[in-house]
Formats: sequence, C-alpha cells, structure tokens
Amino acid sequence: MKIITFGEVMLRLSPPGVERFAQTDTLEMHFGGTEANVAVSLAQFGCHTAHVTCFPDNPLGRTATSYLRRYGVDTNYIQYAPGRLGLYFLETGAGSRASQIIYDRAGSVFTQIRPDTIDWESVLADADWFHWTGITPALSQGAADCLLNAIQTANRLNVPVSGDPVYRSNLWQYGRQPQEVLPALTEGCTLVLGNPGLFNHLYGITETDIEAAARALQRQFPRVRYVTDTSREQLSASHNRLSAWLFDGQQTYQSPTHDIQPIVDRIGTGDAYMAGLIYGLLTFDDLQRAVDFGAAASALKHTIPGDASLATVEEVETLARGDSSGKLKR
Amino acid sequence: MKIITFGEVMLRLSPPGVERFAQTDTLEMHFGGTEANVAVSLAQFGCHTAHVTCFPDNPLGRTATSYLRRYGVDTNYIQYAPGRLGLYFLETGAGSRASQIIYDRAGSVFTQIRPDTIDWESVLADADWFHWTGITPALSQGAADCLLNAIQTANRLNVPVSGDPVYRSNLWQYGRQPQEVLPALTEGCTLVLGNPGLFNHLYGITETDIEAAARALQRQFPRVRYVTDTSREQLSASHNRLSAWLFDGQQTYQSPTHDIQPIVDRIGTGDAYMAGLIYGLLTFDDLQRAVDFGAAASALKHTIPGDASLATVEEVETLARGDSSGKLKR
Amino acid sequence: MKIITFGEVMLRLSPPGVERFAQTDTLEMHFGGTEANVAVSLAQFGCHTAHVTCFPDNPLGRTATSYLRRYGVDTNYIQYAPGRLGLYFLETGAGSRASQIIYDRAGSVFTQIRPDTIDWESVLADADWFHWTGITPALSQGAADCLLNAIQTANRLNVPVSGDPVYRSNLWQYGRQPQEVLPALTEGCTLVLGNPGLFNHLYGITETDIEAAARALQRQFPRVRYVTDTSREQLSASHNRLSAWLFDGQQTYQSPTHDIQPIVDRIGTGDAYMAGLIYGLLTFDDLQRAVDFGAAASALKHTIPGDASLATVEEVETLARGDSSGKLKR
Amino acid sequence: MKIITFGEVMLRLSPPGVERFAQTDTLEMHFGGTEANVAVSLAQFGCHTAHVTCFPDNPLGRTATSYLRRYGVDTNYIQYAPGRLGLYFLETGAGSRASQIIYDRAGSVFTQIRPDTIDWESVLADADWFHWTGITPALSQGAADCLLNAIQTANRLNVPVSGDPVYRSNLWQYGRQPQEVLPALTEGCTLVLGNPGLFNHLYGITETDIEAAARALQRQFPRVRYVTDTSREQLSASHNRLSAWLFDGQQTYQSPTHDIQPIVDRIGTGDAYMAGLIYGLLTFDDLQRAVDFGAAASALKHTIPGDASLATVEEVETLARGDSSGKLKR
Amino acid sequence: MKIITFGEVMLRLSPPGVERFAQTDTLEMHFGGTEANVAVSLAQFGCHTAHVTCFPDNPLGRTATSYLRRYGVDTNYIQYAPGRLGLYFLETGAGSRASQIIYDRAGSVFTQIRPDTIDWESVLADADWFHWTGITPALSQGAADCLLNAIQTANRLNVPVSGDPVYRSNLWQYGRQPQEVLPALTEGCTLVLGNPGLFNHLYGITETDIEAAARALQRQFPRVRYVTDTSREQLSASHNRLSAWLFDGQQTYQSPTHDIQPIVDRIGTGDAYMAGLIYGLLTFDDLQRAVDFGAAASALKHTIPGDASLATVEEVETLARGDSSGKLKR
Amino acid sequence: MKIITFGEVMLRLSPPGVERFAQTDTLEMHFGGTEANVAVSLAQFGCHTAHVTCFPDNPLGRTATSYLRRYGVDTNYIQYAPGRLGLYFLETGAGSRASQIIYDRAGSVFTQIRPDTIDWESVLADADWFHWTGITPALSQGAADCLLNAIQTANRLNVPVSGDPVYRSNLWQYGRQPQEVLPALTEGCTLVLGNPGLFNHLYGITETDIEAAARALQRQFPRVRYVTDTSREQLSASHNRLSAWLFDGQQTYQSPTHDIQPIVDRIGTGDAYMAGLIYGLLTFDDLQRAVDFGAAASALKHTIPGDASLATVEEVETLARGDSSGKLKR
Repeated sequence: MKIITFGEVMLRLSPPGVERFAQTDTLEMHFGGTEANVAVSLAQFGCHTAHVTCFPDNPLGRTATSYLRRYGVDTNYIQYAPGRLGLYFLETGAGSRASQIIYDRAGSVFTQIRPDTIDWESVLADADWFHWTGITPALSQGAADCLLNAIQTANRLNVPVSGDPVYRSNLWQYGRQPQEVLPALTEGCTLVLGNPGLFNHLYGITETDIEAAARALQRQFPRVRYVTDTSREQLSASHNRLSAWLFDGQQTYQSPTHDIQPIVDRIGTGDAYMAGLIYGLLTFDDLQRAVDFGAAASALKHTIPGDASLATVEEVETLARGDSSGKLKR
Repeated sequence: MKIITFGEVMLRLSPPGVERFAQTDTLEMHFGGTEANVAVSLAQFGCHTAHVTCFPDNPLGRTATSYLRRYGVDTNYIQYAPGRLGLYFLETGAGSRASQIIYDRAGSVFTQIRPDTIDWESVLADADWFHWTGITPALSQGAADCLLNAIQTANRLNVPVSGDPVYRSNLWQYGRQPQEVLPALTEGCTLVLGNPGLFNHLYGITETDIEAAARALQRQFPRVRYVTDTSREQLSASHNRLSAWLFDGQQTYQSPTHDIQPIVDRIGTGDAYMAGLIYGLLTFDDLQRAVDFGAAASALKHTIPGDASLATVEEVETLARGDSSGKLKR
Repeated sequence: MKIITFGEVMLRLSPPGVERFAQTDTLEMHFGGTEANVAVSLAQFGCHTAHVTCFPDNPLGRTATSYLRRYGVDTNYIQYAPGRLGLYFLETGAGSRASQIIYDRAGSVFTQIRPDTIDWESVLADADWFHWTGITPALSQGAADCLLNAIQTANRLNVPVSGDPVYRSNLWQYGRQPQEVLPALTEGCTLVLGNPGLFNHLYGITETDIEAAARALQRQFPRVRYVTDTSREQLSASHNRLSAWLFDGQQTYQSPTHDIQPIVDRIGTGDAYMAGLIYGLLTFDDLQRAVDFGAAASALKHTIPGDASLATVEEVETLARGDSSGKLKR
Repeated sequence: MKIITFGEVMLRLSPPGVERFAQTDTLEMHFGGTEANVAVSLAQFGCHTAHVTCFPDNPLGRTATSYLRRYGVDTNYIQYAPGRLGLYFLETGAGSRASQIIYDRAGSVFTQIRPDTIDWESVLADADWFHWTGITPALSQGAADCLLNAIQTANRLNVPVSGDPVYRSNLWQYGRQPQEVLPALTEGCTLVLGNPGLFNHLYGITETDIEAAARALQRQFPRVRYVTDTSREQLSASHNRLSAWLFDGQQTYQSPTHDIQPIVDRIGTGDAYMAGLIYGLLTFDDLQRAVDFGAAASALKHTIPGDASLATVEEVETLARGDSSGKLKR
Repeated sequence: MKIITFGEVMLRLSPPGVERFAQTDTLEMHFGGTEANVAVSLAQFGCHTAHVTCFPDNPLGRTATSYLRRYGVDTNYIQYAPGRLGLYFLETGAGSRASQIIYDRAGSVFTQIRPDTIDWESVLADADWFHWTGITPALSQGAADCLLNAIQTANRLNVPVSGDPVYRSNLWQYGRQPQEVLPALTEGCTLVLGNPGLFNHLYGITETDIEAAARALQRQFPRVRYVTDTSREQLSASHNRLSAWLFDGQQTYQSPTHDIQPIVDRIGTGDAYMAGLIYGLLTFDDLQRAVDFGAAASALKHTIPGDASLATVEEVETLARGDSSGKLKR
Repeated sequence: MKIITFGEVMLRLSPPGVERFAQTDTLEMHFGGTEANVAVSLAQFGCHTAHVTCFPDNPLGRTATSYLRRYGVDTNYIQYAPGRLGLYFLETGAGSRASQIIYDRAGSVFTQIRPDTIDWESVLADADWFHWTGITPALSQGAADCLLNAIQTANRLNVPVSGDPVYRSNLWQYGRQPQEVLPALTEGCTLVLGNPGLFNHLYGITETDIEAAARALQRQFPRVRYVTDTSREQLSASHNRLSAWLFDGQQTYQSPTHDIQPIVDRIGTGDAYMAGLIYGLLTFDDLQRAVDFGAAASALKHTIPGDASLATVEEVETLARGDSSGKLKR
C-alpha cells in the first residue's frame, strides 16, 4: 500500500511544556506540515508513504529530511534548492489559556517550487492514494500549479485523491483567491474533508445541513465519492470532545465521541484523522469501521507530542473498539 | 498609567515538573514576591510599573533585577546593599498531593531596608496607584516604617492605595504584632483585599457576613472605597474553582466562577487577581467588568509557570468574556 | 520497627514526560522492583527497612545500591556477583494512550542467586515483618528456593510475613508452574494480597465472592490472618478510581474510593498500598485505619514520579482523613 | 555615560553543546546582533546604553525586547511593526570541526524600517557615543538611509561615532554596492575598525601596511581619529590567540596576545572588543589601557555562552592586568 | 555507490556530559555498532548504504531502525524477531579519567540470527563494497555462519570486502576460538585493518614490522590487497594524537598526524576511519588521498557526539587538506 | 576502617555548564562541605565513613541526608533541628574567566549546634581517624566548642586526627579570632595541612621554608606527626598543574606533578587530596605511595562534577602509577 503526499514541511519551534515564549531559553524542535503529518501517521500504520516537497540544500533541509526518514517516510522524491525552510513557533496552552502559533513561512523554498520539476507520472506510478490540502495552493502560483499537475496525473492513473481544502485567510498572498483555484483541485478528488460553512465559502454551496451540503458537493464535483469531517467541542485547551462523520453519497456514518483529557499536543489531530480514515478506506471493507478508526486515530494524537501521530494500528484499534482505559501494557 | 509596588522579591527554587525535593538534581529558578508579582502582571498589560525593593549588591541581586527588567518592570528605584537574597523552595504538587513551600527569607537584605533611604515623594510623584501587602510590615521594623512612609506620601499626593493585609503567622518575628501595625497602614487604603475572618483577626471586626464586614471596615477606615476578595474551592492540587467579589460601599459585584483544570502553577494567583482588578479599576468605567477582569486574570495565572502572570490584556479579556475554550490562535 | 523485603531491583528507563520511545533521545533513570518499592515507601514512613537482593559488581550495581541508600533503605545484605542488572523500559501514556513496559530482565544476576548465600537467620533476627511477591519465585529455581528459606525462617522466628502472589504469565520460564511453587510460599503468610480470580488460578479456590474466597484461602492456609486487595476503575491512563479492602477472617474493612486525576506515574501504586497497609498494621490498633492508610498511600503514589512512593506519614494521613484538597503547605 | 547603538537583532537558535543540527531535538535560544551585542556588553560595564531597532509586534518581538531589557539595555526607542524576526541557526564546533551559521534574515521586519520613523535628534540628544556596523546598510535602502540620518545627526550634535564597516558578501541584495554606500557613512566616524584588505576593498586604499593604510583612511576621512582592529590566530575551533591594535594618527598601541583555550562561544567576540574599546576610550585617559581593556574584553567573551559578553569591568580589568589564572573568587 | 554492512546495533546509554553513573538521573540515548557506524558515516558522504542486522520486534527495535533511517541508512534488509536489544552503558571520561563501557549484550536477538534467513545474493547484487568486523563472529555460531555466507557471496559476486578482525577477549563465549573462525573470514577480504600484534594473535604471523607483517598477511591471504591501521598516542581522555597508514603490497602511505583536543566522543573513531578509507578507495584514484581522507574522518569524529560520524565530505576534505583552524563558516 | 568527619554541609546551586547566573533559568543541585567531601571520597574507596553534622528538620535537610547516604556515608549521627540549610551559589568559569562563589551560610542550623548534643565517646568509639577543618570553628562558638570536644575525645581514645586549618577571612563573625581558637584544635592533630604563610598567620611560625616551617609546627604541637600540602600552578580556570608533599618529621615526600586539562569542577579538589592521603596513610606502609595516592586523587577530582570525588581506589591507583592516558575501559 503506497500513499503519496505533497506539501510544505516546516520546522516547528516550541517552548518546553506549557511555558510562554517570553520565559524560555530553549525551544523544542519538531517538524510538521499537514500533508507530511498524514504521511508520517500512515507510515506508523505500516504503509509505504512518500512525501514530495522542497527543502533548502543546507543542514536544516537535511535535518528535515532526517525527520521524515526517522519516522519511515520515503524521502526519495524530495527536491533541494537554495532558500529558507518555513518555520512556525508554537506556544502550547493549558486550561483556559489557548495555544498560539506564529507562522514564519513567507518566501520559503517550498513556495519557489517549479511545477515542471516533479515527474508526477513516476511518483504516482504505483500509488494507491494521493493526499493534498488547501495550504499548498495558498502558498504560491508554482505550488498551486504543481498540485494541479499532481491531481490530474493521479486522475489519469486512477489513483484515488483526498483533499482537505482548508482555508487560511492569512495565506493566499500571491494574487489569487481560493475560489479561483480550489474548484479545479477539488474536481479531482475522491474524498473531500470539510463542512457546509467551508463549502459555502469556497464553492458557493448554500446548503447548511451536513448531508445536504455533501450531496451538493458531489453534484458539483461528480468524482467525489466521500465527504467527511470531524466535529470538536472545545471545553478548554486541555479538554476536548471529538467525533467524526463520513458520507458516502447514501448515508452518513458517525463515529462515537471521544472525551479527550488531558490534551498533550493539539497540533496535527486533524491530519491524524485523515491518515486514519485513508488507512481505514484502503484496508477495511466497512465504512463505519473506517470512520471509527479515523476518529480514534485523531483522539490518540492528542496524547502524543509533536505534529504527527506515532500511534500504531493496534493502539488505534484498541481505542476504536471502545477501550479508552489506558491500561498498562506489559 | 504608572503603578508603584513595594516589597521583597525572593529567589524561588523548585524541582522540575512535579518532582519531589528528594528526587531531583536540578532546581528551576524563578523570582517572586507578592507585590512584584502584581507589578510584573501589570507590566504585561502595558502599564508602566516600578517596583521598589532592596537587593544584595552581588550577581544574585543583579540577576533578580534582570528578572524584573526582563518582564518590563522599571527597576530604577531598587536599592543595593550587602546582604543575602531571600529564598523560597517550592515543591509543586499534583492531584491529592499538596504543593509545599519552605521559606528561607530570614535576615534577608530587604529586612534591613532603612526607612529614610527611599524618597517616596519622587517615586510616587506621577503615580496612578500604589500597592502593598501585609508581608512587608511583617518582616522588620524598618520595612514597616518604610511602608508607612510610602502610604502616607501616597495619601498626601492623592495616589490611590491598595492593600492586601495578608497575615502569615510564621512571620512577625521582630517583636510587633500585626494588630499593632496594620491598622495605621490600612488607614491609608482605597482598596482592601480580605474576608471577614481576616478583618476580625486584624481589626476586631465581628461581622461575619461579607457585605456587613466590608461596611464595618469602611466605617473603621473611611478612606476605604472598595473591599474585595477571591473565593476558591480546592478540589485538588490540580483542580480548583475560583470566583471574586468587589464591594463598593453600596453593592457587591460578583464574578463568574472559573473551573480551573489543570493547575500548572498555583503560586501568585492572588497577586494576578489584584493586578487584574487594579487594571480594571484604572481602565474601565464599570466595576462589574473590573472584577470580572480580575477573576479572569487570576484564573489564567494558574496556567502559567512562575510566580507572576504573563497574560496579556487580550488574553484576559477573552476569558473574562466567557471564552474558556482554549482555541488555538494562529 | 524493622521490615525486610527480598526481590529483584531493575533499572527503569523511560522517555521524559509522555514522549514515545521513537521520539526521544534521552531516558530518565529510576530503579524499581515491587518488593524494593515497598521498602522505599516504608523508609519514608520512618521505618528501618532492609532490602535483600543481588546486584552486578559493577558501577551499575553500585548505582542501584546508591538508589536504595538515597531513600534510606539498609543495603547491608545486598550481594554482588558478576552478571547483568535487569532492566525495564517504560513509556508513560496519557489519556486514552496506555503506558507500556518492555522488560529486559532475563538472565539477570538476581536470577542466579544461590539459596545458600543468604543467612536468613541473621537477616530476620530482629525483624518485625517480611514481605515477598510472586515475581521472585517466577524468576529462577534459585530465587524460589531462596525465598522459601526466607519464609520458613521468618515463620520459625515468628516474624509476620506478607505475600503478594502476583502472577505474570511471561515469567515462569525455568520449568516450574506457579501452582507447584506458590502454595508452599503462601503457607507461611500472615497477610495475602489478591482476588478470587487469582486465588482460583493459583490455589484452585472456586469461590467468586471476595469474602467467601478469602475464607477459603484461610482454610487452605491457616496461618493467613488477613486477606486484602485494591480495586481500581480505569477511566483513562490519566484518571483512575481506587479503593481497598481488608478481610480479617471476620469482617471486611472497606476504604473510601479515591478519585485520582491526573496520574503522574502509575507504576508501583500497588506496592505503595502494601507499604501503607504494613505500616498501618504495625502501627495502628485499628484495621479500618490501616486499610484507609494503605489506600491513601496508594492514591498518593499516583502523583509521584518513579517506582516508589516518597510520601510521608503526615501526607498519607492528611489524605486518609479525607483532605484531598491539595492545599498549599507553607 | 550614554551609548546608542542601531541595528538588527536576530533570534539565534543553536543545538545544545557541540551537537550537530541533525542529531538534536532542542535548540537553545539567544538573541544577538553585532550592534546590540556592543550595547549589552557596555550595559554590563554600567553604562546607560540604548539600542534602536525594529521588532515584529508579536510575542517573539516582545521576547527579543525582554532579552535586551534583561541585560539592562534601554529599549524605549524600539519600533514594532508587522513582519518577521530575522533568525540565524548556529552549530558550535569543537577542535577541528568549525562552527557553522545558517542565516535566515531576508525580509525581516528590520529591513523594512523607514528612515523617517526615528527621531535621531531626540535619541542622540544626550548621547556620548554612537556605534554602527556595515551589516545595517547592507540590509535595505531604508536601513542604509536611516543609518546615514543617525550618523549625520550624531555629527551635528558632536556625538562621537564608531563604525565597523564589516563586509558580508551574501548581504547587499537590494541593488547597491558597499562601495557606493559605505564611504558616506565612514565619513562621519571618529573610530573605524578594519584592516588594509578591507579598506582596499571598500575605499580603494592601496597601502598594505597597517599604519600606512590607517593613515590613508584618515586622509580620505578626516574626521577619523582612531583606527583599530583585532588579529586572531585560529589554531582550532577550541583554541585561538588574539590581540588588538589601535592607531591614533601618530602611533600604534598594541595589546598583549591572549591565548584562549577552551573557546566556549566564538560569536560576538569582535563586538566585545568594540564595547571594551569604546568603554576604554570614554573612561581612561590612556590609549594603551583602552586597547588592552578591549582585547581583554574580547578574550573573556570567548568563555561566555551567547552572543554578548556579560563580563564586568572588574573581570575585564583583572585579565587586562595580566591575570588569566582563573582563580576561584569567593 | 552502494555499501553493505552487517553486524549488531546496540542501544548506547550514557550520562550527560562527563557525569558518572552514580550521580546521574538521566541517560542519553544513542545507537551504535561498529559496522553500522561505518554505514552511517558513509551515508553522510552521500553513499547508498544498507545495514543488515536483526532487531527485536518491539518499540525499541523500531526505534533502533528509526535511528539508522534518520541518518540515511537503508533499513530494508533488517530482520525482526522476538528477543532483546543488546545494550551498552558508556561513562565518558575527561582528562586523566578514562571513559568506561559496561556491555550488556549477551543473548541479544542478534546472536540468535539464523544463517539461512538472509538472501545475500540479493542483498549484495549491486553492491560496491561489503564490510564486516571481528565482533560479529565472536557473538554466536549463527552470526559467524551468516557472516561467512556473506563474505563468500561477496567474493562470488566480485564485491570488494573489508574486514576489521578486532579481537575482544570478553566475547567468544559460544565455544569457538577466534583462531578457528577468523582465517576463513579473512580469506575473503580485499582490505584488512590491523597491526602485527593482532595478526600474530589471530593468524600466527610472527613479523613485528608493519610492512613485513602486512606482506605476510598478504601471503597467507592472497586476496588481501590492502592492509591498514590507525595509530594513536593517548595523552589523556581529552587529548589524543592520531595518524593512519595504508599498505598496498608495494608501499606504505602514511597520513599526517592529527592533534585532537578536546575529545568530545572517542567512541566510533576507528569506524569513522574505516568509513573514510572505504570512501577514499572507492572515490579517489590516489591511495595517499584515501588514507588522508580516512585519518581526517577519524579525527573529525572525535568532535561529534554519538557513535557514528556525521561529518560531510566537504568537512573531511577541509581537514584532510590541512585546515584544522575551525574557522566559522557562514 | 572507619573514619569520622564533622562539619557543615551546604546546598550548592550552580548554573549548567559554564553559564553565568544572569543567563540561566536552572540551577544544578549538589551538596558539599569540605569535611563531608572527605567522607564521601573515602566512602568511594570502600571505607566506612560517618559524617557528623546538623541539618534542618525539613525536606531540604532530608534531601541533604539522602545525598550523603546515596554516596555511602553513614548518616546515623546527624542531628535535625529547626533552622535553615547553609547554601552557596557557584558559577563555574572557563579559561581566563574565574569561577565565583557566593556564600549564603550565615545563621544556618549548623551554626546553632550545641556542644553537649553529640556523644563523641560513642561516635569515635571504634574509629580509625577523625578529620576536621578550620571552617567549623569559624562559624560559631558552639561549633568551635563541639569540635574541641571531638578532638579531645579522639585524643583520649587514641584516634588519629587530621586538621585542615584553612583560614577564610569572611567567616569568623562571632567574636573570636582564629589565632585564639585554632592552636588548641591543632594541638590534638596527628596530621596538619598547610603552608608556611598559613602557619605564620595562625601560629606565628616565622620560618618560610616548607621543611623548616613544618619542623617548627611540630615543635609547637608535638602530637603532629605529619605536615602536608598541595601546590598548584593556575594557568587558567581550565588548566592547572598540581603536586603534593608530605613531611614526616624527617624527610619530605614529593608527589609527581599532574597536568590537569580540562578542569571539569575545581571545587573539593583539596578535600579529595586529604581523603586520598588519609586512605594512603591508613592503607599503605609507604609514605611516598600515600602522598602519590593523595595527589592522584586530587587530580582525578578535577574531572568529576560536584563537590566530592567519586573516584575508586583502582582509578586513583592507575593515575598514581603514572597512567594518565585516559584509555577507554571496556
């Protein structure tokens, strides 16, 4: 089972524990990016995953590659070019104090990626899935074009495509609007993550009911077979409730709700859902089991430091089966 | 807006996380003192705050000054003299295990402060507020005299004064009793923090109802315009519920109750309340908003390591408005 | 009051906080073993405790000895021999993610202990209690024989004996079955820890009700005066509920239930119960108070990093009396 | 004594000790910039120093301000604007392995500084010295213009100016060449740091002998009273020899050579020289003593972690007097 | 260029800095094994390297795999089986205090490797080099047999083989003597590392002069084309002098001597030599350059924490060309 | 072999590595006191050592006891009383930057020790040696009296006594001068550490030659059999040369000179000499061997973090025999 992901990977710098920026003299170093997080999670499930990206040709770029390799992601398709690595600074909150992110990704080497430099035919040749998110087309024209190439190639090769058309208003600085760019990308998707509000904003879908909006999305983009999303009740930075749903054009499969306390690391929990769901769809013949696996994967990520889930299939299945007792394993 | 605080600052030494003294080989180093904590909190709110104290003229004293400067407190009025820095050792508890403090402040350089060495006229010249606590007069005759000078000067200059006449039985070793010393200090206050039990102990007020005791306090000390306190339900070292009230001579303004879990650092949460309330009184034309701001400032401090709150006005207001969701800020 | 314990002590290696093995570059170093944990806990209660074990005659063995000495356990009866120190790797979970232990204790120097090398007569000469667990006889024939000597000597010297005949299926690799070995050891016990299921597995006791099974155990092993156990509701790796009971042949004493959140370190919480109970039985003339002390000792251990409880009598009594408020002690 | 410095301050991120980027999971956080390093050093000598710069209006910018304040630098003239903080990554070498810097400063908020936003008249009103380096005019037209304003204002107010026209070929990306920009800046200097090679490159001075080149520089820029530089023999990343010279138009004052082993942190050692020399020139009536003080300040910086020297006048004088024994001070 | 290495990889646990076992509560976690160290070093030089070994099928085994992947070693040929990971404990010395290793590798999963489980034909199919050491045949009969298969297959496929027949007297516990086993393995080598004393001990070679002994070795094992070794003067644990020589059957190429101070990590410096030499032989057409590259690679390793060198070709060449100045690279 | 030491033990707090106080947020925690350092060192040599002191009856006092126990010192004679633990703050220097100590020991619980509270008869009953230093009588009258009791008891019981009459001018604050107090203490000594300058200051000995001064000391105090001292050439905080001499009334035994580089921790190196010498005198029948053992013990201590040496007899003997190669021990 081989899954391809594409997108920027940033260096994440965060104070130890729940310290504030102003009081620390040390920063913990992780790497992350929404698509790469999906790849890392899937690699822990035993899948062959390869991440396509562009890193600076310096020790930091090589360290970023090391990070992906360490967790078992194939790094053979990574490009290296002069430039800077995108960064983000994360302050982890607790209780009523929110976590806070400061992005410093503008002008990173990834935004300078050239669409003609990746041979998607060969990257996707034997792939079973391709995953993208709305971050990539928001970064630069080159990144958007590169992604469109990827999706169209995947479609040509009959590789299923999942898209998470997340919208971040502080990106999209290169002169295009998401509404101009995202429809063509969504067009090629088998699976789309989102909710009626997002679909309204991006695609002009006016239905506000989940199933109705999902059906409207499928009408607009006939290749879309599955629509999915998580829903989250945020009681505090340390306590959330989370569930997920999956619509297959006919019915909605709803996962149980996970009560998550404490939250160790909130970042990447949506990516862990996507990884779990992709794994579920590729592995199980049972959509309920797939969405339950995804929701459990996301719930578990909240207990794991760093951007990407390092949970195994066995751990996710234990939780998906309803055992949240945290019983010591000897 | 300029606020002056006066009192001892100690070096705080605590094992990492929730380790016990007996099992650690490292101590984390913070600085704190109830009045300075108020100054640091107010500095984060953008106020000009200056703290008056006495430090040893050695690298530790300079490091203590650095601490105050780092967080934006004006250190120009600090005295330096030969002597030792007061210390306290803190072991942070969790769940049913209580946190524990071992003070080692006896004979510190602050207790040797001489009342004639501070030119309160010039310190308070353009001040908008002066804050003191009952720790200072408990330390030495010189400290008590120095404080009395300050309060009387503030009164003369029409600078509002807040007093937190906290009583610690293990202090007061220099031959005076709080009942002899505190009334003259309280006399000069605009705002007093405390509860009926404390007022009984210190001032012989016999009313046990909050409003009645507050009125009695105002009768005894006519300058007192506001009486306030927090009330705390301690479910465990990791879980508290907290609210605050403010009486203005006519009515009691009651804040909502904050459910606080987990508690990262319990120290200085009362000082954070005082800082929030002072900020509120100086900024808002609305006593309810002031007490709500104070209560939220205190609640937030429980999530911040160290003695002093490093929360911003925006963070406190988010919580005071009722948003305790801890939603990630990007 | 002198208490003797006997058993293997392992080096415990665990990632900082709740990190996973795959993402750490540092391991925290503790030492632990179920019987030694009891000894360390009792030493914090002010008891003279001595632990009998065998360590490698190298710097690691000496460091293990240092650990016991550091916490006040008498190490004069420890043997040193060529060989390896048993180890275990612990990954601490959080919320729905379970903690995980990987043992690496096979062939340790303790398993090579020779029954004739310990002079139990002199070790137990002035002892007030002897404690063992089912781990020891599961490790090697020599360890089992050595333990039998100890128990028989204790019986001869009228030293009360407690046994925790815990069964671990992945041990017992040396050719004997627990059913062959444990009855003779249980024979010498004054106090046995366990539940009907365990008693059925080990001794063929068929009663499933707690009191009935305890009575049956007493019939089978007439020296047994007390039967006890804890019961635990595992809501998550961070949240448990715990209580304990003690049967004295006539009635069952039931402790209150402790709601434990957060859990800092789950390891050794059963040993802390045993230590608390032994202390209670040796100190109080009141079985209810003894079981309450044990349950509180166990609850407190969940808040303390490492294998062994470092709580004092005063701390345990505060909690046993029902004060779980975690109020700051100055 | 008040000294003004102007320039970019970057966040410095470096692996602990001598680890490589690829093997660490933590980065130590310092702040530094050649001009601010001079200011911090001078603040440790008890001078009033103020640093003028531009920081992002976010928690990282505030943390950078905290850093300067912590070490006693006046931060009242700092501007805040939307944008990013410049960064650099430092890997510290040892022995034959060189230290390595990766800059990530392009497009930082400092480069966007606008020349009209700083009121140099008021900043320099009561100043005793102004210091700049060749980094600033290399960053952007705005920074270069702003610096020219500063120098011309200083000249008008008779504030002495020191310039360190260091040339970094990888800067100067905004369309100007150093040869076009630096002469006008050097024109206003009282003191210039550099060597014949640099003077040739920047100003076309062809003399290769130090004194001859210094005289030529003074002929070209008549305001220049002093020319100075350090010279360094690099035996390894852990072992250097360092001396300094100062030419006053008549004679050259040569410091003794310091044998420096081990080197704890090589960064900022030139800035420490400049700080020491400025202090010496402003304090001593003796040029030999001034250059000796500068050289000793630089030598001491090699033993101090971080970008800026934290040595006191007393420490520098001890070494300048020839006592490098490192004798324990009680 | 593809290089295959084969051998055990152990978990290395060491106190931070130069602390002793008895005084630390934390252990740093690296992985190492003489052959894998060669693979990691070569991977930093840009070579495709694959390491063949056997790991436990548990999180520790997967973490060991992560380590190799992180540094770019192909881990596709690694086997997983039930068992334990070999360990060693390292205390790093300083000055006159020696570093100390405690091995705990007996009975590790690697010793249980079965010779028939590795398809050497396919592993070595397109390899350019195969490297082994005398540790492997000292561990178990299975490991020795497996290695013999590898060497014979390499010979059949004309893959050059290097052997480092290091002798450790505390290994060889499975009933065979090195003299019985090593000659057949040495038989297949192109390159042998060692000195006359070792050759005498293992192969009965009586010549004591280096060249004479090397010629004798070539006579006994005609396939051996190169004989090599390092020589080291140990002035202290922090200061060594190191050089290397290579004999090609005709002449001896002698590297310059590197003066190494301070020594950051002494472990794996011989492996770094071997990696450098293999790289040199495969890349340069110049034996002098090859041995110089090897010696410089070894010298650089002394400055890098961990078992394996993380130096790049460029760094090694800088030192090999004689530049040991450690000049800061920007 | 049982050795008794008596004196204050302080908590030592020091920034990590060579950081300065002003730049750290963490302090490493060791315990030390010159006499206890001797006890700890001797315990590592396998001697039974007991340290007599007074600690506060709080968690810090118990942690100090743990420290001594951890390293094998008998703590049964330690008293506990209300009060504070003496402290000192240590900043470790490097190269030309000196280490710096800030004492905060005034009024510690040890100074309040009462001479009648220690039963020296029983403490010294079976002792082979008693050791004291000039710190103790400098702290308080009670401490001085207590020490005199101890020495006189030792004399009565024929227990040899060593004295290190070190003079610290900033102590002696309780109204007595060393010249009044030390002669009576020195009177009881078998072995005295010091040099002619010290002997002149304390005892009025005017000889300036070592042997002549030593003979004069013996004339003044006839019980003194041995006079000894170390001599140290301080090249930098990281590099010293050290040797020792011992005069037995007839001849001077001179140790070789140790070149010590790098220095990891300079504190307690004199105590390590004393421990080594005591061990040597009690163990070897050879004064040259004793002084060589002492000098090597002192040299080794420079490589060990903390106040006390943790070197073994084997390690000291290796160095005393002249092997300073730091060769890796497997």
